[in-house]
Amino acid sequence: MADKLIIFDTTLRDGEQSPGASMTKDEKLRIARQLERMRVDVIEAGFAASSNGDFEAVKAIADVVRESTVCSLARANDRDIARAAEALKGAARSRIHTFIATSELHMEKKLRMTREQVLEQAIQAVRFARNLTDDIEFSPEDGYRSDPEFLARVVEAVIREGARTINIPDTVGYAIPELYGSFIKTLRERVPNSDQAIWSVHCHNDLGMAVANSLAGVQIGGARQIECTINGLGERAGNCSLEEVVMAVKTRRDYFGLDVGIDATQIVPASRLVSQTTGFVVQPNKAVVGANAFAHASGIHQDGVLKARDTYEIMRAEDVGWSANKIVLGKLSGRNAFKQRLQELGISLESETEVNAAFVRFKDLADRKNEIFDEDIIALVMDESVQQDSEHYRLVALSQRSEMGERPHASVVFHAAGVEHRVESDGNGPVDACLRAIESKAQSGAEMILYSVNAITSGSTESQGEVTVRLQHAGRVVNGVGADPDIVVASAKAYLSALNKLQSKTERVAAQG
Amino acid sequence: MADKLIIFDTTLRDGEQSPGASMTKDEKLRIARQLERMRVDVIEAGFAASSNGDFEAVKAIADVVRESTVCSLARANDRDIARAAEALKGAARSRIHTFIATSELHMEKKLRMTREQVLEQAIQAVRFARNLTDDIEFSPEDGYRSDPEFLARVVEAVIREGARTINIPDTVGYAIPELYGSFIKTLRERVPNSDQAIWSVHCHNDLGMAVANSLAGVQIGGARQIECTINGLGERAGNCSLEEVVMAVKTRRDYFGLDVGIDATQIVPASRLVSQTTGFVVQPNKAVVGANAFAHASGIHQDGVLKARDTYEIMRAEDVGWSANKIVLGKLSGRNAFKQRLQELGISLESETEVNAAFVRFKDLADRKNEIFDEDIIALVMDESVQQDSEHYRLVALSQRSEMGERPHASVVFHAAGVEHRVESDGNGPVDACLRAIESKAQSGAEMILYSVNAITSGSTESQGEVTVRLQHAGRVVNGVGADPDIVVASAKAYLSALNKLQSKTERVAAQG
Repeated sequence: MADKLIIFDTTLRDGEQSPGASMTKDEKLRIARQLERMRVDVIEAGFAASSNGDFEAVKAIADVVRESTVCSLARANDRDIARAAEALKGAARSRIHTFIATSELHMEKKLRMTREQVLEQAIQAVRFARNLTDDIEFSPEDGYRSDPEFLARVVEAVIREGARTINIPDTVGYAIPELYGSFIKTLRERVPNSDQAIWSVHCHNDLGMAVANSLAGVQIGGARQIECTINGLGERAGNCSLEEVVMAVKTRRDYFGLDVGIDATQIVPASRLVSQTTGFVVQPNKAVVGANAFAHASGIHQDGVLKARDTYEIMRAEDVGWSANKIVLGKLSGRNAFKQRLQELGISLESETEVNAAFVRFKDLADRKNEIFDEDIIALVMDESVQQDSEHYRLVALSQRSEMGERPHASVVFHAAGVEHRVESDGNGPVDACLRAIESKAQSGAEMILYSVNAITSGSTESQGEVTVRLQHAGRVVNGVGADPDIVVASAKAYLSALNKLQSKTERVAAQG
Repeated sequence: MADKLIIFDTTLRDGEQSPGASMTKDEKLRIARQLERMRVDVIEAGFAASSNGDFEAVKAIADVVRESTVCSLARANDRDIARAAEALKGAARSRIHTFIATSELHMEKKLRMTREQVLEQAIQAVRFARNLTDDIEFSPEDGYRSDPEFLARVVEAVIREGARTINIPDTVGYAIPELYGSFIKTLRERVPNSDQAIWSVHCHNDLGMAVANSLAGVQIGGARQIECTINGLGERAGNCSLEEVVMAVKTRRDYFGLDVGIDATQIVPASRLVSQTTGFVVQPNKAVVGANAFAHASGIHQDGVLKARDTYEIMRAEDVGWSANKIVLGKLSGRNAFKQRLQELGISLESETEVNAAFVRFKDLADRKNEIFDEDIIALVMDESVQQDSEHYRLVALSQRSEMGERPHASVVFHAAGVEHRVESDGNGPVDACLRAIESKAQSGAEMILYSVNAITSGSTESQGEVTVRLQHAGRVVNGVGADPDIVVASAKAYLSALNKLQSKTERVAAQG
């Protein structure tokens, strides 16, 4: 039997640390369910001690996910670890992932601790965690830039205390495959009890080599767990992409000879869900999940491929979840068909009331748009849940007009804490006019740092627009998302949703990179 | 002295082969100038024999670029090679890059040729090219999946005929660093005259390892040329990213010990130019050129970085051309300031008339937008040149209105071949209404396969929107781009610009992947 490669997804923890990618509890829960459906082995659901919001999110995921192990990050101290254990109580299988930096640079400049202090704290942390759970992962932050001798001492000690998984992060994305692979190999050889733990890799993509580094850690170094994120989401250039690393292991099984449990047909749905939730677009030329990744399959330049598929293709689009026929529902579809499609998409709404509300919105959309695609349904449900998340602001009505040569003008009616406001403004464009109108009353003082529009479905000009607005205020960054066939309405919804998120104050502490 | 690593950019050839990324002559010329400014060693300007349009583009670039070698692709036949040589006549330094497939799969299924026929054709092609130029590159297409023994015979023969560069493509993105590096090493050992050529790597990113594979080809295999594209543009998941591979070699000089001639401060401007030209967005978590790549530098989560920059950063944003202060011009800026900024941005307009036209548009924009950023200027100039490229359709006037609960409505006035048309329509949104109105008269029959909006500059709601519309008709795919502070106007411009491109019929033959 081939060795098993453990896929540890950290979209909801390290991915969420990307500036602008923070998610609500409901959003995280929806993604966790998709990860479970994809058969991810371990879901790092968050960093419970970092905020009450994150605690609640980890707890909600632990309470619901049955098939995957649910994990929370925790700094190497009793409070963080207790908090993680508390959040994970309801899990079928849980893991506590504790970390402390071991590189000279981080110990001296960030922690201001000596080697012996760090070693002692690591030991104490794992010992404490061991009373709360069997499944403990330990990460020496900035491990790849640490002194191998000191690192080996720390790792040996934490394995002795009961750490079962040892993860060696390339925190700053500095590694090169050959060097990273050898680093882990040598380290394993230095640690006398190394066979009592599963070794893990965690790579960042700053030099574009996160996937290759992770795989070298496996192939050369002997690691059997890879930490990764959907779409390679993560701070700076992001983390190792789940979709790339999984498809590399599957496509080159001749070389790696490893089993992965992932259901690859869930990859594209997961990619879309994460992209729609965070507003982080996936570029067309992104491997596996980019719109052009299987462009030969899309009716263009098919000659070579028609003659023999494998002249240009090493994977099949359908194997990773691209389906040719995406039209699913229309005007005449009934509530049962809608509900069934929600189930097929893996969207579980909490109550029949929610299903009904979503169905009303669906019928409204179907009146305006002939073909309803999966993406439309996801957007519709997300839009609904975003509205519900923290209902301070809500759009009531909007009208706008523009004419070349004149200033565009918008009138908006919205509720703020139940009170109706009627506002109007001109602006450089209709969207600008509309957001100025809202801001004239809301007075958030937030700075807009991103405005992006995606056509949710291509193939016709009647597509819905999905707008993401990223606002920054008082050191916090939030994303608002809104969807509507009218791009101006979608923009207003997105702006109000971002304002709602700014309303719900949460303080967070920084986790490891 | 360290070895020199040759950077061969194929954005304008392999990059342009991405479905939807085709560029006009002027667009290619503008990018070629930026590549020269970045000190790329070799610019593959196109595939001269593939169409008259591409011939003209290669010729225009060869006539203008002085510092970089200009290269054209050519299949291994006399006509293609003669055509390439003809287009390259005006170049300061020119290269002909000829190719033929050598894998069993491609020879049998695509070429329907025997090994001996392929070998003979490769020899004849290089012999023919040798009469026209000194600098010949030869690529065995799908080289990495070819029988090494046969491949060695072909390579030895073409070196004997005078090929100076031997490029081994991983055409389908199937390679793994260790294997690809060893493949090239072994191949070089098998070819008796291997030291008479420079070896080159050309990797695709289907499994997310193009950068690592290229670098293994260099480090393990001994290659000294890397073929790459800006933003990793290219068919399917794209090619090796220039920005990633260059920054990896520079950042890890301790390991690679190689010199690269690239001026890295031109990387971000090049990335923006290519993204704006093709409409292919760069995802925020893209290494080096993504908006979040240096997110620590953007005012968020700065704690660790403030204590010691290298705790989390291995490169500096300013070294790759991210500049903190991007506000450049405003309402009061004069023609000279504008012209100077154009020069600093590397935009050379052909005549004073063009500068004047651009300045008029600049003043118009400055009336509506307080702060003019570099991106605004690039968009403005591109918009102008797109309009000029093939002026069949031109927008004259547009007005639209929408109100929640009612069908949005648009009226558009546009010129088609000098004749004015007034059209109107309703639609699902104002953009839909507007494009329907145009289409009601233009009757292009084209299918829209992509609609995307980017805020050109963030930081305020008064940003210009840049819209890309991708149309497909009769097997052709074109991109139209339009910019305006009013997103509906930008959309109409983009749609008309795409229709203009569909007007100018060019047939293309498929090149290697």
